[in-house]
Amino acid sequence: MDKNIKLALLGGDARQCYLARELAARGFETAVWGLGKEFDIDKAVKCRDARSAIDSASAVVLPLPASLDGISVNCSDPDSDKLKLLTLLDYTEVPIFGGRLGESFRLSASARKKHVIDYFESETLQIKNATPTAEGAIYLAMQNMKKTLFGSRVAVVGYGRIGRMLSCLLAKMGASVTVAARNLRQLAEASSFGNDTVRISPSYALGGLGPLCEEGAFDVIFNTVPARLFDKEVIEMLPKDVLLIDLASVPGGVDFAAAKERGINAIWALSLPGKYAPESAGKIIADTLDELFESEGIV
Amino acid sequence: MDKNIKLALLGGDARQCYLARELAARGFETAVWGLGKEFDIDKAVKCRDARSAIDSASAVVLPLPASLDGISVNCSDPDSDKLKLLTLLDYTEVPIFGGRLGESFRLSASARKKHVIDYFESETLQIKNATPTAEGAIYLAMQNMKKTLFGSRVAVVGYGRIGRMLSCLLAKMGASVTVAARNLRQLAEASSFGNDTVRISPSYALGGLGPLCEEGAFDVIFNTVPARLFDKEVIEMLPKDVLLIDLASVPGGVDFAAAKERGINAIWALSLPGKYAPESAGKIIADTLDELFESEGIV
Amino acid sequence: MDKNIKLALLGGDARQCYLARELAARGFETAVWGLGKEFDIDKAVKCRDARSAIDSASAVVLPLPASLDGISVNCSDPDSDKLKLLTLLDYTEVPIFGGRLGESFRLSASARKKHVIDYFESETLQIKNATPTAEGAIYLAMQNMKKTLFGSRVAVVGYGRIGRMLSCLLAKMGASVTVAARNLRQLAEASSFGNDTVRISPSYALGGLGPLCEEGAFDVIFNTVPARLFDKEVIEMLPKDVLLIDLASVPGGVDFAAAKERGINAIWALSLPGKYAPESAGKIIADTLDELFESEGIV
Amino acid sequence: MDKNIKLALLGGDARQCYLARELAARGFETAVWGLGKEFDIDKAVKCRDARSAIDSASAVVLPLPASLDGISVNCSDPDSDKLKLLTLLDYTEVPIFGGRLGESFRLSASARKKHVIDYFESETLQIKNATPTAEGAIYLAMQNMKKTLFGSRVAVVGYGRIGRMLSCLLAKMGASVTVAARNLRQLAEASSFGNDTVRISPSYALGGLGPLCEEGAFDVIFNTVPARLFDKEVIEMLPKDVLLIDLASVPGGVDFAAAKERGINAIWALSLPGKYAPESAGKIIADTLDELFESEGIV
Repeated sequence: MDKNIKLALLGGDARQCYLARELAARGFETAVWGLGKEFDIDKAVKCRDARSAIDSASAVVLPLPASLDGISVNCSDPDSDKLKLLTLLDYTEVPIFGGRLGESFRLSASARKKHVIDYFESETLQIKNATPTAEGAIYLAMQNMKKTLFGSRVAVVGYGRIGRMLSCLLAKMGASVTVAARNLRQLAEASSFGNDTVRISPSYALGGLGPLCEEGAFDVIFNTVPARLFDKEVIEMLPKDVLLIDLASVPGGVDFAAAKERGINAIWALSLPGKYAPESAGKIIADTLDELFESEGIV
Repeated sequence: MDKNIKLALLGGDARQCYLARELAARGFETAVWGLGKEFDIDKAVKCRDARSAIDSASAVVLPLPASLDGISVNCSDPDSDKLKLLTLLDYTEVPIFGGRLGESFRLSASARKKHVIDYFESETLQIKNATPTAEGAIYLAMQNMKKTLFGSRVAVVGYGRIGRMLSCLLAKMGASVTVAARNLRQLAEASSFGNDTVRISPSYALGGLGPLCEEGAFDVIFNTVPARLFDKEVIEMLPKDVLLIDLASVPGGVDFAAAKERGINAIWALSLPGKYAPESAGKIIADTLDELFESEGIV
Repeated sequence: MDKNIKLALLGGDARQCYLARELAARGFETAVWGLGKEFDIDKAVKCRDARSAIDSASAVVLPLPASLDGISVNCSDPDSDKLKLLTLLDYTEVPIFGGRLGESFRLSASARKKHVIDYFESETLQIKNATPTAEGAIYLAMQNMKKTLFGSRVAVVGYGRIGRMLSCLLAKMGASVTVAARNLRQLAEASSFGNDTVRISPSYALGGLGPLCEEGAFDVIFNTVPARLFDKEVIEMLPKDVLLIDLASVPGGVDFAAAKERGINAIWALSLPGKYAPESAGKIIADTLDELFESEGIV
Repeated sequence: MDKNIKLALLGGDARQCYLARELAARGFETAVWGLGKEFDIDKAVKCRDARSAIDSASAVVLPLPASLDGISVNCSDPDSDKLKLLTLLDYTEVPIFGGRLGESFRLSASARKKHVIDYFESETLQIKNATPTAEGAIYLAMQNMKKTLFGSRVAVVGYGRIGRMLSCLLAKMGASVTVAARNLRQLAEASSFGNDTVRISPSYALGGLGPLCEEGAFDVIFNTVPARLFDKEVIEMLPKDVLLIDLASVPGGVDFAAAKERGINAIWALSLPGKYAPESAGKIIADTLDELFESEGIV
């Protein structure tokens, strides 16, 4: 099945590499620019410069995140010239898909009447990403613990997509799981899937995290809530031998300086899908692009 | 712990009986009227007439559903006189808690400035009820199948609270589970918990249920969607040896007449928590009442 | 695939019916005698008398158990004449496969130089039967409990094939499972699969079952050990509201008279695979016969 | 609870450290010699020389393995003098417990009428060790894969203690698991726990491992069989992108030279409990010693 549609994939690293392979395997003509030489893109075609990649493409696909500095495309190849986002807007008339597009890029595109789509906003992408995120978090726990997850006491703070997947997986592995959440509905659901529960709330002392601070109560605490729950006050109450894994995106849920001072092993685990399982993460983006290409009329 | 608070529990059957026992065990003074003699209410007290039960009570608790006919309290004791809902409103000034209170009862109460609360509207109750509902549905499947759930091919239509719990439990028991749902987000979630998926939609032929109609594709189909998906047209396409269990409340999701005509074993499984696990169901109501008593200022 | 091999299936009930269907589906010519009219054997052929079924067959297949009285073939059809086992030996020279062949039948066969094979002795059959047995036991528990298995406290006595499967399944369903066994090795294994453990031993008071007798400790106890562990002395110590399900074959592990006297709901669950899941049970026998036919040189 | 019993723990590393902490926590007086300074033994007491540790001890506990070279005690502290096994035999009259005691050490002990016990021969230890072994193997897979275990195709060769635990855990994590084993009984059991199966046998081509060699059939293969199944011939048939994790003890189940030559990522994962989860592994040895101390009359 050849779709006879050319896609320009610019920048990125391992995840973008697997995305290119996956899109090529699905029948797209795939032109890649800005990937380091170490990445094997199989049937996709590497281009020397961004313009030749973009030439006659039906869509441009930027990595996740599309840019690290808000100025240039996020690009792992040290030998590539930098490609500015604004330059890219001038290069092409076709839709530009990218992950975590910044506000200023959107405005610039809008001003130039260029069509940009942030695939990271796809709800199905975020749901599917819960799997590599949860596995990656478990991998980090395994790496930093001296005991098995089986028989460990684990707390998961937050019961959104990631908290749910993570607590489910940990329980299957034999950990004793306590879910801390604010919402009674979430606590009821966590309880009906067999977890213990702790209610948290900004109006409680320590935000309700007191039960997580008891000596010996937990071996690992995973935070999934994007708010500074583990502030200096909480950190100072935590046992020193607890492992703290923070999955909250910037600015993070943990006061890492306080944790370091107290001697607590606290890990800020960002972008787990791309780091832990780039192949799965690339495939998830490919699935999302398939949906978006259809709704945008590209395929 | 004696809470020194009297509750009047009127009507009901096994579930109300366990509710009375649970509330008594939690320290309430519990006066019960209208339960059949076969129910052992342990430390709760049986009253001969409704008025003496209500007398000096801080709240009245009606069963789930509060009434079967919209006129009298739902009551399992054949020896009790009927207690009309309107009469009950005249008897008492205290709040009346009940399950599935009808619109006309609410209006009557409002007109008389009496306070009535429908505990069935509690989201935590509905979440917790997913457990006895899913187990009860599995029990019915076991009762009506000639083979083990392990190794069976099972479809779950709908992925709300019940569909999620049911598909999770069936997968753990070793069934091969396919989730059919309309929403892409739900399908992504079902998929990330390991289920196969089928997309349904009113705009598809057979509403998208075609894959469920293939010969030998499924041993059992559970419907959880409160819409007539399994209409005459779909029923006539289903293999005759499939077992169809409908969990949708009135008016149900299956054309049972068509199913009977075709010779398909179709079961309408209503009120599973109360029938299958009255003790758990009573305890769930007690938990909900505890929450409501607090928010209503009764305890 | 037609194997051009004729099999004579004599007697039996639902399980034998599904066995016939399965063997027919696998390409055997299948002649059936002695099944009640209510059983639909699909492509297999019903014979009026046993001799015509046996005629030119390559093997005779008796049900499980082959005989209920040790004299005649176990036969569900009230309209069939009884077929004595000894008569059957005179009718045929081909191998006779049957389940739970008695000692006297074996001796008679041996004296007549006829070849009889007990497929119930197959270890793979017994391993596979653990699945319908465990599911059937769980079905009985669901039928007799007022609460959900989720959240229940369950004891499984014995950790052989059935105890292992049962405790695994119960834990997946959200029960809190305690395994009672004699062997330290089994207890270590049960523990490493997440169960609590109790050591039993004939040299302990109550055989070590004391922890199972504590008030409120367990909702259900499953016994899988083929020894009279639950004798009058233990029964008298058990809480009256525990549910006791005995999976031990004759003479059983429970003093049922004592249980009845004490008012304990005790269920002797025999032959669960055939009763609970005759289709799966028939397929398991078909698998075993396939193995045996090969090792006996029939196929 | 102070048992007033002194134990001398000699040599070892992280696992021995946790063993010392665990034994001290259980009330033994615990004298430790030969552990590196980086290990925090909490309440146990460090001794400068082995003799003072041994002095007045009721038993000597050597690490697992007791010796790496067959001559001296396995010792992680670079500042300790080496302690020869034969010297140790001269130092003490009390029982010596150690893991994987070599044949020559046993003979020497026997000649000197000293009592030595190999705790690694304990069946309960080996059963319990299956948990850290399986988790450690999964950790290695996660570390070396580019995709999630969820949705991966995984083969487990061998269905003993470790194969069973590993396949169970992988399935719970959402991998599609195929068990390859020789024994029909094991295959039936693997199948009844939901795994696909492949029969292996020395009499089959490629030892029956052909199905594992198909292109794209498996992402990871775990070998648990202590025999050279993955010889040069099999390795040359395996897809190059498969990950091969060998859990077999010396001499291993994989021709690593052939794997390297073919470009296959093959990992020999030895002593996983001690490396991956020393705290759990130390506790497991403490449990075993508790049993042995009782049977040897030390406590």
